[in-house]
Amino acid sequence: MTSHPCISSNKVEGTPVYNANGDKLGSIDDLVIDKQSGHIRYAALECGGFLGMGTDRYPLPWDMLTYDTRLEGYVVPLDKARLEQAPHYESSDTPEYSDDYGRKVYDYYGVAWH
Amino acid sequence: MTSHPCISSNKVEGTPVYNANGDKLGSIDDLVIDKQSGHIRYAALECGGFLGMGTDRYPLPWDMLTYDTRLEGYVVPLDKARLEQAPHYESSDTPEYSDDYGRKVYDYYGVAWH
Repeated sequence: MTSHPCISSNKVEGTPVYNANGDKLGSIDDLVIDKQSGHIRYAALECGGFLGMGTDRYPLPWDMLTYDTRLEGYVVPLDKARLEQAPHYESSDTPEYSDDYGRKVYDYYGVAWH
Repeated sequence: MTSHPCISSNKVEGTPVYNANGDKLGSIDDLVIDKQSGHIRYAALECGGFLGMGTDRYPLPWDMLTYDTRLEGYVVPLDKARLEQAPHYESSDTPEYSDDYGRKVYDYYGVAWH
């Protein structure tokens, strides 16, 4: 582990997520952790729905999130159309985060599975 | 990243922590994440206090936690006396998780800083 600033999961959860145009896509609902390595594989972006009802979760590779101090939120290089087509699930229907599922997510965003 | 089961941060937070004797030490309150690598450095164990008031946080290296399906909680090889002397802080007084602080924590528990 090299030297970087740290952040609390309690602070990450609820943080808004924007795209490059500054459109709010949603907010981080959850983090998905590789149990053994303790590495965060995905941040689950919550978006859609109405007043928080019927929202979907879009797992994003952690590396895609860049914190913008001005927006006080994360920015992802993703337009809404691209996000719409991305792998997602209902909060009541969380998938098994298998390697196959992980590769599907990473591949969709063009992030190397490592 | 190799293949391991995943777990949600929402599930980790609130999970009880026991020692090898089965004594409950507290529960996980928070996770401290290396921003850039997305690696969890510590799980903040909440314990002490009364009805959740005045509880302290004891950062534990993630690698120290072993999930026990029977106890439905984590087990750490730590007696209460050892934990009492461990680095800790009040929730209202979260330290800067610098490398110096990290080494102090990892050294206390004899976990290699990596």
